[in-house]
Amino acid sequence: MQSRRILIAQGGGPTAVINQSLAGVVLAARGIPDVGLVYGARNGVRGIVNEDFLDLGQETGSNLELVANTPSSALGSTRDKPDLKYCQEIIQVLQAHQINHFFYIGGNDSSDTLRILSLEAEKLVFPLRCIHIPKTIDNDLVSNDHTPGFPSAARFVAQAFAGANLDNASLPGVYVGVVMGRHAGFLTAASALGRKFPDDGPHLIYLPERVFVLEKFLADVKQAYQRFGRCVIAVSEGIHDASGTPIASLLAKTVERDAHGNVQLSGNGALADLLCEEIKSKLNIKRVRGDTFGYLQRSFMGCVSDVDQREAREVGEKALQFAVHEGRNGTVAIKRNGAYSVDYELLDLDVVAGKTRVMEDELIAASGTDVTDAFRLYLQPLLGSGMPDGFRLRAHPVAKIRNISG
Amino acid sequence: MQSRRILIAQGGGPTAVINQSLAGVVLAARGIPDVGLVYGARNGVRGIVNEDFLDLGQETGSNLELVANTPSSALGSTRDKPDLKYCQEIIQVLQAHQINHFFYIGGNDSSDTLRILSLEAEKLVFPLRCIHIPKTIDNDLVSNDHTPGFPSAARFVAQAFAGANLDNASLPGVYVGVVMGRHAGFLTAASALGRKFPDDGPHLIYLPERVFVLEKFLADVKQAYQRFGRCVIAVSEGIHDASGTPIASLLAKTVERDAHGNVQLSGNGALADLLCEEIKSKLNIKRVRGDTFGYLQRSFMGCVSDVDQREAREVGEKALQFAVHEGRNGTVAIKRNGAYSVDYELLDLDVVAGKTRVMEDELIAASGTDVTDAFRLYLQPLLGSGMPDGFRLRAHPVAKIRNISG
Repeated sequence: MQSRRILIAQGGGPTAVINQSLAGVVLAARGIPDVGLVYGARNGVRGIVNEDFLDLGQETGSNLELVANTPSSALGSTRDKPDLKYCQEIIQVLQAHQINHFFYIGGNDSSDTLRILSLEAEKLVFPLRCIHIPKTIDNDLVSNDHTPGFPSAARFVAQAFAGANLDNASLPGVYVGVVMGRHAGFLTAASALGRKFPDDGPHLIYLPERVFVLEKFLADVKQAYQRFGRCVIAVSEGIHDASGTPIASLLAKTVERDAHGNVQLSGNGALADLLCEEIKSKLNIKRVRGDTFGYLQRSFMGCVSDVDQREAREVGEKALQFAVHEGRNGTVAIKRNGAYSVDYELLDLDVVAGKTRVMEDELIAASGTDVTDAFRLYLQPLLGSGMPDGFRLRAHPVAKIRNISG
Repeated sequence: MQSRRILIAQGGGPTAVINQSLAGVVLAARGIPDVGLVYGARNGVRGIVNEDFLDLGQETGSNLELVANTPSSALGSTRDKPDLKYCQEIIQVLQAHQINHFFYIGGNDSSDTLRILSLEAEKLVFPLRCIHIPKTIDNDLVSNDHTPGFPSAARFVAQAFAGANLDNASLPGVYVGVVMGRHAGFLTAASALGRKFPDDGPHLIYLPERVFVLEKFLADVKQAYQRFGRCVIAVSEGIHDASGTPIASLLAKTVERDAHGNVQLSGNGALADLLCEEIKSKLNIKRVRGDTFGYLQRSFMGCVSDVDQREAREVGEKALQFAVHEGRNGTVAIKRNGAYSVDYELLDLDVVAGKTRVMEDELIAASGTDVTDAFRLYLQPLLGSGMPDGFRLRAHPVAKIRNISG
């Protein structure tokens, strides 16, 4: 039998644990006798067409363990989404290097690339094993309980809102935090796990799974502010109106008209700033602050779920095991088994390729501005051990002495 | 002798360790026999004039320890900066409750409030001991080696830039991160501690201690981008032109004119977005991203320096000890003693009150866009133990097989 010649690449936005999956494949391959070589492509599929390969066989196990614990794609990444011609170029390079296993760590775009590649390889009778290793902070892959990378990003969002809530409680006002996730609201919903006490924020959560109506939003904020004397709000960057138009561009359009097109609107801070301006001007609240979590939520160094780490490692290891033992193409999927444990399955590539999962209805509260207990039970075990926990002084009020009306 | 009746309050922006100082005073007071009571004022000086006190004598030691480890002001805070009349009201309430010790945890505004109060109490022959306990993420108190709260915020900024640098390396482009600190650049400079390898970002650091010239900035970015194929930039929110006008409002003014005043400019995201727009349009770089760290950098839950925690606890404890043993008003100051240890001193209130420390020249590189080794040596021990550390794959390139020119 021909020896296994393995290529690994990483695509799309990085995560805190994407290198665990890389180490998972490379270290597992070291235990397989018929593995001839293990290469890494720099910057995803772009590195394949550029023949920009590293020989990962020359990496020490020690360093691979250290890299595994380092966030962001160690091989570099790409936003390229290959079409058929691009895939044909990829195959020519793989053939030249006699690569017969390609592991691509990425989201649903990357799985679609593998689907096209596998069909093209079959057509050319080129024996190429294509295995997709899931990764995305958006948690938007279908047929997966969750995706590696999401738990750590969710932990960041939960910790960020736990802190922002305490900050807002000490200096009351309105706080808007904008979270990544254009179509799937999982990461924004994770803000709910930052709550502890009944009056903790986020008091309102806006997800892309529900239509955003500005008037309703302002009424919600007004009500929460009256009730709590403050209001912490989690907003997905992907909120949109009934027609699907993003709110960022709707609000921005008004500004563009006023500004004769001179104002930048696609900047990361725009949605938060525009929502804050609406709250300030329409509700007449003075202290209104907006933060856009931006790249911090996916690349902050030092906020990682240990559950996410071990699962990201395992999907890499399982990918290699599936390639060796099942002898077919596919995508590694995480299935929950018990509370809490997981199993892994190899699904056909077209099950997940190019599809987008969004939050299931049972995870979103009837109000549309909160999550359900089912979501809390779903996310809690993924956040891992050692979550920080906040405490309050217990109220022992002192009787007033002076004439209160004075 | 009259028993000691103690009041504690917290003022200004919260920090990750401000409750350590609160616990430091309260727990130390429990060991002093002549302490009659320990109250906390809710929401700083505002809570004093409102007679909104908690009896901290009824708090358990256990809960105080848990609260000490919780970020943000547990007593609530205020932005009120009392004038003489406000201070006279405060004194009336203190007299009514026979409070004879006031500990105010805050920055230079809070120390100035104590200065006014102490003068007024003296005038009224009211025996009030006024002790300022330092706290500020800006690190801008004079006569202090550093201030509690700064090390944890600096750690957040260093970890954030370490991660943002890795993210930027995997998907190259320009990244602008805007950091808090209107007059003092210490927190922005902390971004330099996120670097490890010689080509790591931040490649450029802009501090409020140096005049910001937009043309120079664009030339710097162009040069760094050409050299590294990417560019990570740390910018203080307080950058200003030669006249002292903040860049945010300079860039914003242009937009305001275009927009006939309809665009919000004071929002947190504005400076990052405006600088990104300048880079995109003037340097013709496609992938330009801006993040504003906003409230995350001072309130993120789960990013704290253990050195900061223990020092914040000690300044509280020392404040009480100074009040008991020195019998005079003052502000507790941190003095560095060895590499690394600290001592505490009680300085007169007017030494720090209302004054602002900025970065000393020897901490800023001659280029004006970096820090010196002296700054690295200064900050490193403050960040505490367990700083995350990033690793890279070692380059073992594979020879190309295909005709490179093809």
